[in-house]
Amino acid sequence: MIDALEQDAAVRCAMTAVGREAPSTEELARVAWSVITEPGDGVAGVLIAELGALEALRFALRPGTNRGAPSADRRALVEGLRRWRARADAVAVRQAVEGAQHVGARLVLPGDAAWPAELDDLGPHRPLLLWVRGDAGLLRAEPRAAIVGARAASAYGEVLAAEFAGDLAADGVVIVSGGAYGIDGAAHRAALGVGGPTIAFLAGGVDRAYPQGHQQLLRRVVDSGAVVSEVPCGTAPTKWRFLARNRLIAGISHATVVVEAGWRSGSLNTAGHAAALGRPLGAVPGPVTSAASAGCHRLLREYDARCVTTAAEIRELWAGGVGGATPPGPAADPDQQRLLDAMSRRTPVPATELARRSGLDPERVGSLLGVLELDGIVRRVERGWRKTDA
Amino acid sequence: MIDALEQDAAVRCAMTAVGREAPSTEELARVAWSVITEPGDGVAGVLIAELGALEALRFALRPGTNRGAPSADRRALVEGLRRWRARADAVAVRQAVEGAQHVGARLVLPGDAAWPAELDDLGPHRPLLLWVRGDAGLLRAEPRAAIVGARAASAYGEVLAAEFAGDLAADGVVIVSGGAYGIDGAAHRAALGVGGPTIAFLAGGVDRAYPQGHQQLLRRVVDSGAVVSEVPCGTAPTKWRFLARNRLIAGISHATVVVEAGWRSGSLNTAGHAAALGRPLGAVPGPVTSAASAGCHRLLREYDARCVTTAAEIRELWAGGVGGATPPGPAADPDQQRLLDAMSRRTPVPATELARRSGLDPERVGSLLGVLELDGIVRRVERGWRKTDA
Repeated sequence: MIDALEQDAAVRCAMTAVGREAPSTEELARVAWSVITEPGDGVAGVLIAELGALEALRFALRPGTNRGAPSADRRALVEGLRRWRARADAVAVRQAVEGAQHVGARLVLPGDAAWPAELDDLGPHRPLLLWVRGDAGLLRAEPRAAIVGARAASAYGEVLAAEFAGDLAADGVVIVSGGAYGIDGAAHRAALGVGGPTIAFLAGGVDRAYPQGHQQLLRRVVDSGAVVSEVPCGTAPTKWRFLARNRLIAGISHATVVVEAGWRSGSLNTAGHAAALGRPLGAVPGPVTSAASAGCHRLLREYDARCVTTAAEIRELWAGGVGGATPPGPAADPDQQRLLDAMSRRTPVPATELARRSGLDPERVGSLLGVLELDGIVRRVERGWRKTDA
Repeated sequence: MIDALEQDAAVRCAMTAVGREAPSTEELARVAWSVITEPGDGVAGVLIAELGALEALRFALRPGTNRGAPSADRRALVEGLRRWRARADAVAVRQAVEGAQHVGARLVLPGDAAWPAELDDLGPHRPLLLWVRGDAGLLRAEPRAAIVGARAASAYGEVLAAEFAGDLAADGVVIVSGGAYGIDGAAHRAALGVGGPTIAFLAGGVDRAYPQGHQQLLRRVVDSGAVVSEVPCGTAPTKWRFLARNRLIAGISHATVVVEAGWRSGSLNTAGHAAALGRPLGAVPGPVTSAASAGCHRLLREYDARCVTTAAEIRELWAGGVGGATPPGPAADPDQQRLLDAMSRRTPVPATELARRSGLDPERVGSLLGVLELDGIVRRVERGWRKTDA
């Protein structure tokens, strides 16, 4: 496949248009990986980190590879090979790059001047690349604050999101959010309203506005901010891609603030990533009688989120200095990290609920908990499992 | 003075009426101390703990004592002697006991079956005694939860206070509060409404309803709960006595929950005592746009209070087991404790603000901070001082 891509003049031309004048085979391989994997594929991440994108690709596509499996857990690798090979198609890669060219997106790769080093803390779940429409320089502008929350926001939440985002953006803080209805939209809009910087991370390709109703808003974000995605143009958002996208919002931001969130809101997932990365996490309280604030109160109770009620209190989240938070090293095993993300230091969670939260199967959860318990990282208590302070 | 009291038949008769059939001289001395001191007088507390009430009283009233001052800090002792002697009056003591007899109050002393051992954690600030109208047995009934908050409560706060207190009291939880308008009143009323147990701690004597408008409510609390005070009958509530009273509410309760509180509400003082005693502290969030919730959000931010939104979450505060919290030993120096109470682990507080919060003079604050810093208990940071995690 790589040979086909290297010899494809259209690919070369499109690569030039997205900012890579003389693309190396390694760069092409990285783009190919972004097409054949789902975002956040930790097995691919480990493989690429070990071998480089080109060698990893050759390894993955070579017949017989599923026999002598090296480093990564064998079963996971075999499953990966099956997934990846089904998608290994030079045409799809060309279409991805041409799609980006078509909408004027730029390709930003790890190590580029525009690459935000904070994303490297995601370890094997680091994105392979970013597609950026608008000002790619914003990816490194500091500080960056994620203002996120429920689509089904109340007037209370939208007014506060706008107030906080407007205040911060007027001050040069980059407002990061997910482009969704509700809190996200209010945050982007307020930043644009004061002529401040804002970045929207999409779960689908940057060539398609999602949600449709935010076509105009996202157009404005492209014009004076940046719309970013790790998935190729032409890719539709899926439930999984929304969850994966959330790790980018948390990962790139120096602090994450949840303004309103229902009890099972997706923004709790973003918050969980921020907490797992050791990034400051704020939650805005609201009436206990409002379902739209239940998730925020849950963050205060279960995730040790900081209660924030004003833009000034949000600024305090990174007052220790941007980059001052010490992210824990990425966990050796991506499943382990997913499991730990699902746990709390304070509130015990039963194993069945952990399986549900982490999306791992109950048996795997059981064996991981056993290992983590031996390491003193988690502890079994009366009503479930919790992380220790170690 | 003690001799006069011992020989006073009226005192003896009144003491019998308040539950001490054959009062010892030590007991009489303790009542005398409660009349001649303000509540929470730490200097008197240390003296009584060291010598016993009777010896301490003899020592304090003996001419010339202000010369060879022993244990307690000399200046504080000399000041104490001046205050105490000005009030040392056998008639006032008789009136206190007769006042209690008149309203059918009982005298509860440390070591009595009804004495709540939790109050002993207050160290030198432990009350000398308690006057109880109603069911003194409630002082030991478990668990006990303080539900407190602003007098200037909103409908939101009063409804929640009633909901929580009613739910808990129906379950046998003793609802402790301060008998004030607003949150306190709503909590007592809800407990009475479900036929549950409730205790009102007053800042003045138990013979006078304060506030006047709660005369009927406090009457009902006497009838099916308990109205308690450490100050003698006939004593009017003062600002100081309200603050001192708050330590009893926090001290006797297995958990303290602040439902609504303004930015400088007195209930933050109660919360501060709970935190200093290592007792679970909960705060109910509310709209950030409501001034009546600002103090609660402050507790979440600065006091590591736990966010509670339901009665079930309040129960979790003592779920580790009643008495499961480990209170830190009382500080050797009462001023030190007052200073530490005014500090936070999270938010640095400037020394001038610490002086204001603790009521200590700035020079004393400076010298105490120096000592505490050497011990590694506090740390000077960029914007002030904070407690370390040691």
